[in-house]
Amino acid sequence: MMIHTTTLECNTKGNADMLDLTDQVQAIVDDLEMHEGTATIFTPSSTSGLTTIEFESGALEDLRRALERIAPTDAEYLHNLRWGDGNGHSHLRAAMMGPSLSIPVHHGTLMLGTWQQILFVDFDNRPRHRKLIVQIVGDRV
Amino acid sequence: MMIHTTTLECNTKGNADMLDLTDQVQAIVDDLEMHEGTATIFTPSSTSGLTTIEFESGALEDLRRALERIAPTDAEYLHNLRWGDGNGHSHLRAAMMGPSLSIPVHHGTLMLGTWQQILFVDFDNRPRHRKLIVQIVGDRV
Amino acid sequence: MMIHTTTLECNTKGNADMLDLTDQVQAIVDDLEMHEGTATIFTPSSTSGLTTIEFESGALEDLRRALERIAPTDAEYLHNLRWGDGNGHSHLRAAMMGPSLSIPVHHGTLMLGTWQQILFVDFDNRPRHRKLIVQIVGDRV
Repeated sequence: MMIHTTTLECNTKGNADMLDLTDQVQAIVDDLEMHEGTATIFTPSSTSGLTTIEFESGALEDLRRALERIAPTDAEYLHNLRWGDGNGHSHLRAAMMGPSLSIPVHHGTLMLGTWQQILFVDFDNRPRHRKLIVQIVGDRV
Repeated sequence: MMIHTTTLECNTKGNADMLDLTDQVQAIVDDLEMHEGTATIFTPSSTSGLTTIEFESGALEDLRRALERIAPTDAEYLHNLRWGDGNGHSHLRAAMMGPSLSIPVHHGTLMLGTWQQILFVDFDNRPRHRKLIVQIVGDRV
Repeated sequence: MMIHTTTLECNTKGNADMLDLTDQVQAIVDDLEMHEGTATIFTPSSTSGLTTIEFESGALEDLRRALERIAPTDAEYLHNLRWGDGNGHSHLRAAMMGPSLSIPVHHGTLMLGTWQQILFVDFDNRPRHRKLIVQIVGDRV
């Protein structure tokens, strides 16, 4: 058993920009030659979140619209009244979606479904350079 | 330390059918004689989700109704317009609930609360045969 | 590689009382002299939840108000009709937020963002004494 902690970097447009991280996380599994293990993906930020989805434009926009109903961009937020940075909705959405995801690796492959991809959403209200953590606990071949 | 990856199978009715997986996951812990470890439960699907709840019919129906308000079955979804399979609400709910759950095992027992069970929800709009992954990293006695 | 299971205790006021657990979880990492590992934080309860947030009063109150909209305290819940304990909204909110959080530890430090703290929310409708589980799988220096 061993543990590996890796950083994955990406640029986002903010404003609920959605990225498919599946290939990048699988590439880390490949590079480490991990055969069996648990991959933890974590976003070290309070204005972004992680989940899985069928990464096709319809489902992505449906999710964007639902989040806009639950935490509208232009509602009044106490966070904005206090800090004036206009991203109160970003904090709210991130807290509700959550920052971590745990995905089993089996025979060297992330055990995702056929129509299931790893989704990173940047809720902040401006473009950001993001660093995510991919940590794998497991065994090599 | 060792790692074990197991599959757990079940049949669902779809349409927010809810199953209590607690006994099946505990049985896997028992079979492996795991004494101390972290159990990751993962649904390899984009139309189902995992969380915990007091598994009694009232709380289950309250959750079903809340999800129906947040992501109504009959609303307009871009996913449906594109693919015509009518399960846009299923994808939305699954992405919001999330596919993974991490539960500590201590002295051979899942560390759940007295009134807390592992809940699997199948959001798809038809009956499905589902395979879930239970992966445990830990030590035997 | 080793695994450590620790309990963290706290008193809450209930009613969406929010606690920042960051320092307590980091203290556990320090005490164990964990250098590299995955920390699983788990609430063994069906009326409380875990996520991360910028722990400042504005964002906390924004989250409280959003949860009140999604699962109002005074709505009709089947759980309440059946059990009469008046905490149907607590069960609903807890199931939606989820009970577990996985945070990577790297070089002895929880890999949280600068403005990101571990948030425990007690949704129950009365003060509670709570025990949470912090389980770390990893390596010492």
